[in-house]
Amino acid sequence: MELGISPWPSSFCSSVLDKLKASARKVRKIGEDDPRRIAHSFKVGLALTAVSFFYYATPIYDGFGVSAIWAVMTVVVVLEYTVGATLSKGLNRAVATLIAGVLGVGAHEVAARSGERGEPIVLGLFVFVLGAASTFSRFVPAIKARYDYGVTIFILTFSLVAVSSFRVEELLQLAHQRLSTVAIGVAICLATSFFVFPVWAGEELHKLVASNLEKLASFLEGLEAECFGEKARQQNMEGKPFLQVHKSVLNSKASEDSLLNFAKWEPRHGRFGCHHPWKQYQKLGALNRHCASSMESLVSFITTFREPMSKNTDPDISEKIRTSCVEMSSGSAKALRELSTAIRAMTVPHPANGHVAASLAASADLRRALSGGVALSEVTDIAAISFLLAEIVGRTEEIAGSVEELARLAMFKPVEPDCGSAVKPVADDEETTTRVAITIDR
Amino acid sequence: MELGISPWPSSFCSSVLDKLKASARKVRKIGEDDPRRIAHSFKVGLALTAVSFFYYATPIYDGFGVSAIWAVMTVVVVLEYTVGATLSKGLNRAVATLIAGVLGVGAHEVAARSGERGEPIVLGLFVFVLGAASTFSRFVPAIKARYDYGVTIFILTFSLVAVSSFRVEELLQLAHQRLSTVAIGVAICLATSFFVFPVWAGEELHKLVASNLEKLASFLEGLEAECFGEKARQQNMEGKPFLQVHKSVLNSKASEDSLLNFAKWEPRHGRFGCHHPWKQYQKLGALNRHCASSMESLVSFITTFREPMSKNTDPDISEKIRTSCVEMSSGSAKALRELSTAIRAMTVPHPANGHVAASLAASADLRRALSGGVALSEVTDIAAISFLLAEIVGRTEEIAGSVEELARLAMFKPVEPDCGSAVKPVADDEETTTRVAITIDR
Repeated sequence: MELGISPWPSSFCSSVLDKLKASARKVRKIGEDDPRRIAHSFKVGLALTAVSFFYYATPIYDGFGVSAIWAVMTVVVVLEYTVGATLSKGLNRAVATLIAGVLGVGAHEVAARSGERGEPIVLGLFVFVLGAASTFSRFVPAIKARYDYGVTIFILTFSLVAVSSFRVEELLQLAHQRLSTVAIGVAICLATSFFVFPVWAGEELHKLVASNLEKLASFLEGLEAECFGEKARQQNMEGKPFLQVHKSVLNSKASEDSLLNFAKWEPRHGRFGCHHPWKQYQKLGALNRHCASSMESLVSFITTFREPMSKNTDPDISEKIRTSCVEMSSGSAKALRELSTAIRAMTVPHPANGHVAASLAASADLRRALSGGVALSEVTDIAAISFLLAEIVGRTEEIAGSVEELARLAMFKPVEPDCGSAVKPVADDEETTTRVAITIDR
Repeated sequence: MELGISPWPSSFCSSVLDKLKASARKVRKIGEDDPRRIAHSFKVGLALTAVSFFYYATPIYDGFGVSAIWAVMTVVVVLEYTVGATLSKGLNRAVATLIAGVLGVGAHEVAARSGERGEPIVLGLFVFVLGAASTFSRFVPAIKARYDYGVTIFILTFSLVAVSSFRVEELLQLAHQRLSTVAIGVAICLATSFFVFPVWAGEELHKLVASNLEKLASFLEGLEAECFGEKARQQNMEGKPFLQVHKSVLNSKASEDSLLNFAKWEPRHGRFGCHHPWKQYQKLGALNRHCASSMESLVSFITTFREPMSKNTDPDISEKIRTSCVEMSSGSAKALRELSTAIRAMTVPHPANGHVAASLAASADLRRALSGGVALSEVTDIAAISFLLAEIVGRTEEIAGSVEELARLAMFKPVEPDCGSAVKPVADDEETTTRVAITIDR
């Protein structure tokens, strides 16, 4: 308390402590959200430590000398989160180093014939032309997508070998050492990536598409409960969480494209064969985004129109619209959930599950009802909503078709007939009532 | 002709030639689409050749020795298409190298006290812990967005210095050389990027947002001409080019985010000050995508319903709907074009230009007309289309508000009063008639 300054440092310390605690919580959450992130960090540490021993072990060091450092560099830049990304980068790096090394040695041979003064000029010209041409090739979309990293490494290695050739006597040895150490680095990365908690880009893509289907289903379930449920009318919809759930689907294109790109590099793994139809996930993803886009339009209508059902609406019509909307949204939601489950389990989705058919029927039904002489003044807003909902039903049908196509191409297994298969399927409206368990004594 | 095999090589050659020609055309088109790509390729070649001379020039080489190669590496990986990206990578690389170098030398000092057998173990432990921790930090979104490359370089340099410290006698010299050569490489990249045909990420973002507004306008113009025009009804809409034009807007999030990220690194340039409100472009971009999303829903309705106007519709109603849709789409299209022009010219958009107001009025008007006892059966499909169009009008109003906000934040200039300002604005329907040129003699 003396001099009156002691409260300041203590409050300062506590505010710094609070901030540190908040950051620690955030960091902890990142790890808890996906523990594989922690595993990946350990993998990088492990691979780095492993490759460092090449430097510490005297016999290996004597073989490679200072070049052993390339192995360390390779590990840092090549080891990625998924196996596919690591494979893509590793192969790009190894092959680009090989080609650039050969060309670099060739460039040296040519330049060496130009005399001592001419050599740097010829080398500079080679570096300029190949550097510019390679850089331009990165603007070609097909090269950009799959070989961007390889082109960078090509320019890097070529410049390195060509430029060094002016100073280094044993150029072939340098090129050979760089190639070997890069190969060792790539091998360590691949071993770590493949064998220590592997994360497969293909599997991630598979899960991402399935979880996007679930998000679309959640949106429709929220819609059913909050907008068309008996008690839910007349509420302000803004800020409801279900109105946000489709947004991440809308923005999933970049992740899907990059996972697809890496999945193509991956060998057979788990339940995914060599010729797994990864392309089909892209098509399905586009349909998911199309569906999410319709949802986005629906959100605008729902949040703008506070009173979806006009007060002077005929109660019969009002009830008809409400039940149709309930059927459309719940049917599509169930269909999407089933499709997602089928993808996750890699089983053929049940074509006769009837949820899509039921919501299509509800949609046609509503259309007929609305066409039967209802005055538009009664239903303007809800009509717009029901039209958009009908469109979402249409999208769901397309999604179902695409999942069936995926099941066919990827040879998903048919669902094994279980005991209940002989029993007449339970109709939707009975689901909430008590079910009787049927046990069959074999 | 002898042996009958000569036709094969000739047809083979011509098919190879055809393919080569096709590829050459594609490559040429990439250059023609944006000649700055060619300029960028030359810049990379130039910077590489410039940095190579550090290797050829004996006095500099004597100063840096083999480390001079780091300057070449830096140029290859740091020189990017835009100034912002180059600055971001260059500063990340320089600062990360500095921090990691200091820590690496510190780690060596600690490890050196553990005796000859303990040293590699202690060093390995350091590399493991820092490697794992840094890798984990890359999962933190805020770090990932701005410092991902810096973290990679940090791990790289730290491992390099720490591991090398076991073999290299003159560690301080190594760290110093690496830092200096990286700094030289970064300086060459920045000089090339700033002074040779600079491409500014901020300006690209500015243009991208403006061109997205134009695309939205083109969609609405196409809609007006092809769907609501007098002659255009009853056509099959699928495959019409205007139905595709909004799609690239839908998928522009990734480009906008990355350009925004780089724009923040850029200093004052051209018409863009230090505190240009780049964040506002992100908000405007989100609204553009929202609008494009409504267009996507509209496309489904337009392509599904072959006969937007039912034959048994009252001609008056039919004409009313048609003209309202024309007014809504043309008004919004004009508003969007004007907003885009205002952004490009960096002038305050005219708040009283009236196009948004006109389309809002048309939308309200149609709503009133449809509420006035029209039977829904007459207009189901077109009603859905007009509702969605009304929503697009609403989005356009939001976009106009966001552009006005941008103009305010970025202090766009007011439009200079021109000669015609005193003349009563020409009404929209008069635009197609002959205009009288008014010249005022000063």
